[in-house]
Amino acid sequence: MPQGVPQTVPDDGLTTRQRRQQPVLAVHTGDGKGKSTAAFGMAMRAWNAGLRVAVFQFVKSAKWRVGEESAMAALGEIHNEQGIGGPVEWHKMGQGWSWLRANADVADDHAAAARSGWDEIARRLAEEQHDFYVLDEFTYPLDWGWIDTDEVVRTLVDRPGRQHVVITGRRAPAALVDAADLVTEMRKVAHPMDAGRKGQKGIEW
Amino acid sequence: MPQGVPQTVPDDGLTTRQRRQQPVLAVHTGDGKGKSTAAFGMAMRAWNAGLRVAVFQFVKSAKWRVGEESAMAALGEIHNEQGIGGPVEWHKMGQGWSWLRANADVADDHAAAARSGWDEIARRLAEEQHDFYVLDEFTYPLDWGWIDTDEVVRTLVDRPGRQHVVITGRRAPAALVDAADLVTEMRKVAHPMDAGRKGQKGIEW
Repeated sequence: MPQGVPQTVPDDGLTTRQRRQQPVLAVHTGDGKGKSTAAFGMAMRAWNAGLRVAVFQFVKSAKWRVGEESAMAALGEIHNEQGIGGPVEWHKMGQGWSWLRANADVADDHAAAARSGWDEIARRLAEEQHDFYVLDEFTYPLDWGWIDTDEVVRTLVDRPGRQHVVITGRRAPAALVDAADLVTEMRKVAHPMDAGRKGQKGIEW
Repeated sequence: MPQGVPQTVPDDGLTTRQRRQQPVLAVHTGDGKGKSTAAFGMAMRAWNAGLRVAVFQFVKSAKWRVGEESAMAALGEIHNEQGIGGPVEWHKMGQGWSWLRANADVADDHAAAARSGWDEIARRLAEEQHDFYVLDEFTYPLDWGWIDTDEVVRTLVDRPGRQHVVITGRRAPAALVDAADLVTEMRKVAHPMDAGRKGQKGIEW
């Protein structure tokens, strides 16, 4: 029901259209499934709207290619070849970000790698390089103190133009939650892992 | 962290591999965002694994084409043309299901249209026509009593082969939640609608 009627109309001097054009900062947190999957679903939707999509994965191994990455890559190729949808970039911290020339200095230092990832995102936000950012599992380096949450929140709140940002992961810091326009907690009610199952291709990744 | 270690190993006489091959019945419920989006994200992943994907939308207007539908259609074309991924079908109740020859008899009767949709899904499950089903906003016709929940649960529990089913919508009936392998509640923490914003293309649809 996306075209719902707003519950309140703020006294901010903006028209509905101006308000609608505001960029969204979304956080998917909680212990349940679907945090990243919903973010990638949003990325698929953003692609369809012609937005420039960039995904930054902060934790998953670089060796481990999720199904969404392959599918988004396929959509990115459709853009490149047919001009449909938007361009897609997918970056993984794993064994070193793709934009780093020498990965050796950060490969064994996960904290440094995470900071390097955030520095690059901050640069791209300043340059308005993309329209839709997924910062997947970005709450962990914040939670672990590897990246300064206050600096991140300041940068996100002050980001120029019309750039949407979706951040996923458990234990989202309170300051980030407070700054976000849209926060969803995915709460686990039941999960097959509890019944001794392991993941399976096409379902879990 | 999909490759997690199971918390318990059930005494069901199955090997881990047999257990892993079990089809999943998932429910995304709650008042928060991301229920359908996470289901479509899972569909994208299933497509990548070569599964035959079918989406059935029970409520959204047929006039209203969500970004995910266009993106999944693009992925389906990649399958048809290049043999990559799986085939994709997308059916909407809206102004009448595509498989109905004469829509006139159900167009004005939403309860009849919903039952017709479920009857078709039950047929396809019996024939193992797809590998991955999204029953989007299917909880509403159950909640409203248009479709018998016990019959649905029985059909889902007894479905043959290895067919995954994801059901989305608020107020999932207890019997459905009990029967599901994976239940996630999307809980709203903050939403821009509350601040008087309306939806925007690429973000909300």
